[in-house]
Amino acid sequence: MPLARIDLCAGKPDAYRRRLADIVYESMLDTLNAPRDDQFQVIAQHAPGDVIANPTYLGIQRSSDVVFIQLFLLAGRSVAQKKAFYETVAETLHCELGVRREDVFIGLVEVTRENWSFGNGLAQYVTE
Amino acid sequence: MPLARIDLCAGKPDAYRRRLADIVYESMLDTLNAPRDDQFQVIAQHAPGDVIANPTYLGIQRSSDVVFIQLFLLAGRSVAQKKAFYETVAETLHCELGVRREDVFIGLVEVTRENWSFGNGLAQYVTE
Amino acid sequence: MPLARIDLCAGKPDAYRRRLADIVYESMLDTLNAPRDDQFQVIAQHAPGDVIANPTYLGIQRSSDVVFIQLFLLAGRSVAQKKAFYETVAETLHCELGVRREDVFIGLVEVTRENWSFGNGLAQYVTE
Repeated sequence: MPLARIDLCAGKPDAYRRRLADIVYESMLDTLNAPRDDQFQVIAQHAPGDVIANPTYLGIQRSSDVVFIQLFLLAGRSVAQKKAFYETVAETLHCELGVRREDVFIGLVEVTRENWSFGNGLAQYVTE
Repeated sequence: MPLARIDLCAGKPDAYRRRLADIVYESMLDTLNAPRDDQFQVIAQHAPGDVIANPTYLGIQRSSDVVFIQLFLLAGRSVAQKKAFYETVAETLHCELGVRREDVFIGLVEVTRENWSFGNGLAQYVTE
Repeated sequence: MPLARIDLCAGKPDAYRRRLADIVYESMLDTLNAPRDDQFQVIAQHAPGDVIANPTYLGIQRSSDVVFIQLFLLAGRSVAQKKAFYETVAETLHCELGVRREDVFIGLVEVTRENWSFGNGLAQYVTE
């Protein structure tokens, strides 16, 4: 269902980055009705200064530890599901990894069913 | 409103990359009616050869210094606004940073209002 | 027409990465009716562990050598064209580069005509 892109500054330990990715995946299971094992993610680490988040937009105080999470997913989730996803990701990242809630930026991009191939050159979500 | 991804070959100074990102942001203010301070950008630096742009497509002579700018933004901008954005970005990058106008590649991806969380686990653009 | 993002673990030779990108482009020509020379691609190399693909989702056995291919393209291709693209990419990557067919993940994101600028600050696909 989704491809997640996670962008952050380089320097976090391997275990931190992996747990971060797992939290994004588990939040999808809990709130977006994602199928179990549907975890496809790319973490990109960047030079200091290459991850730019305005420090005050909408009254939210962001730091240089901001994390960008971008999810490309099947269209069809409700606004309530999306809101639950944002809340769960931010809350869990904060509680488990100490990420400031203010530093969790999330963007969704929705696509159709036939726009995915999960391997073997097939369009697994196309049923006709 | 937007998340910008800027991809270029590694090796440009910090100040160059930052000014490039700022020019993209300022062009959004000037042409796309973006809110002030709405600057969220990821710059990714790549190995030589990993940024591939055909050197002649549509009769435009591109060099290896090509810059890819991809903007994920709220749907709703007019064609005229988009055209003004392209022109302003290319012109300003050229005048201020010496980027060849031919080397400015821009792609937009539009999404809906509820697809953004700017921090704190909330969907700030959802009003209901 | 498209911007392709190719994500894989660092460590593959330059010639491998370039051929991989060329195969994606050639498959677009063969199956998606893409115009000749329309090759715009960004290859991003990542640390081990930063390219995450579930090893069994949908019964497909994936390895750590998975390749993510994400195509941002003009809307309008048929389901049959998309299926042919997936099959051609996976088959050719396998035959020419030895990529396991199971390790080829593809996602498409479709956009409109006025969302591209191929250089010079112009919207080349807008005709009015």
